[in-house]
Amino acid sequence: MMSGPIATQFEAYNAQYANHFSHANIADSHESKVLVLVCMDARIDPAEALGLQPGQAHVVRNAGGRAIDAVRSIIISQQLLGTREIVVVHHTDCGMLGKSDNDIRCSIKDKTGEDVDHIAFLPFRDLRESVLDDIRLLEKNPLVLDVPITGYIYDVKTGRIEKVDH
Amino acid sequence: MMSGPIATQFEAYNAQYANHFSHANIADSHESKVLVLVCMDARIDPAEALGLQPGQAHVVRNAGGRAIDAVRSIIISQQLLGTREIVVVHHTDCGMLGKSDNDIRCSIKDKTGEDVDHIAFLPFRDLRESVLDDIRLLEKNPLVLDVPITGYIYDVKTGRIEKVDH
Repeated sequence: MMSGPIATQFEAYNAQYANHFSHANIADSHESKVLVLVCMDARIDPAEALGLQPGQAHVVRNAGGRAIDAVRSIIISQQLLGTREIVVVHHTDCGMLGKSDNDIRCSIKDKTGEDVDHIAFLPFRDLRESVLDDIRLLEKNPLVLDVPITGYIYDVKTGRIEKVDH
Repeated sequence: MMSGPIATQFEAYNAQYANHFSHANIADSHESKVLVLVCMDARIDPAEALGLQPGQAHVVRNAGGRAIDAVRSIIISQQLLGTREIVVVHHTDCGMLGKSDNDIRCSIKDKTGEDVDHIAFLPFRDLRESVLDDIRLLEKNPLVLDVPITGYIYDVKTGRIEKVDH
């Protein structure tokens, strides 16, 4: 099976990366103490923007950085791997911002002809509220431990995170 | 509300990062043409390991790098933001490897007292099969476009990706 065209570029890059890779520089995964939940957006590099050390943080990413989609991963991270802090990062100019679930469903139904009424795409109208909603969702979930949860808005134009107080 | 202890470190690091941040170096997100699905494991830095350029790739991460948990994000990535290739990366020494869903449910029920029989934690017995299963799941999903999907196993000891042929 042929690799995809971009995958082929990744393979070539990775061969060089692996030549200089040192396992010794990476902390044991079981020492990770924090889980970072971030949008999948291509403009954000969580390791660069937050200074994540290799082995320091579980990084969960999805469209919007939404908590409901991350619950399975968070339970595993806490219960099986021992993380004890959560950081939630949403961002300016997000593709999920300013749309309704109905807008997205109609758009996708138009393009694909498939009925997607059963899918919650989880867009949001307000960035600050989406961060707070996601923190509250995690705080209320009986399967998520009572650990510090800090929320931020990342500005894709400045690279700066702004804390969302709650 | 106080920031968590590790979040406080992130804030300090990010302030320096933002001081040197240049938006001009980042491609417009709508030019992203690939979505990379990777495990949340703290030892993997997808940008470093695959040479992702800023703005190049949507990065979706969850426990195990499982496709079923990424479908919402993949649909949004393709239909709203135009990506046309998928790369799936699972890895050696994964916390999801070698366990059954029943093992995980029992362990979490023991620790939390909560019934988690309704949650699929999506562990796997075989790394190669988990990659192939996830590629097949995406290929069969009528809401996922018929685009190149390439699967890899990342070796956390060497930093090297190995393609999984299917």
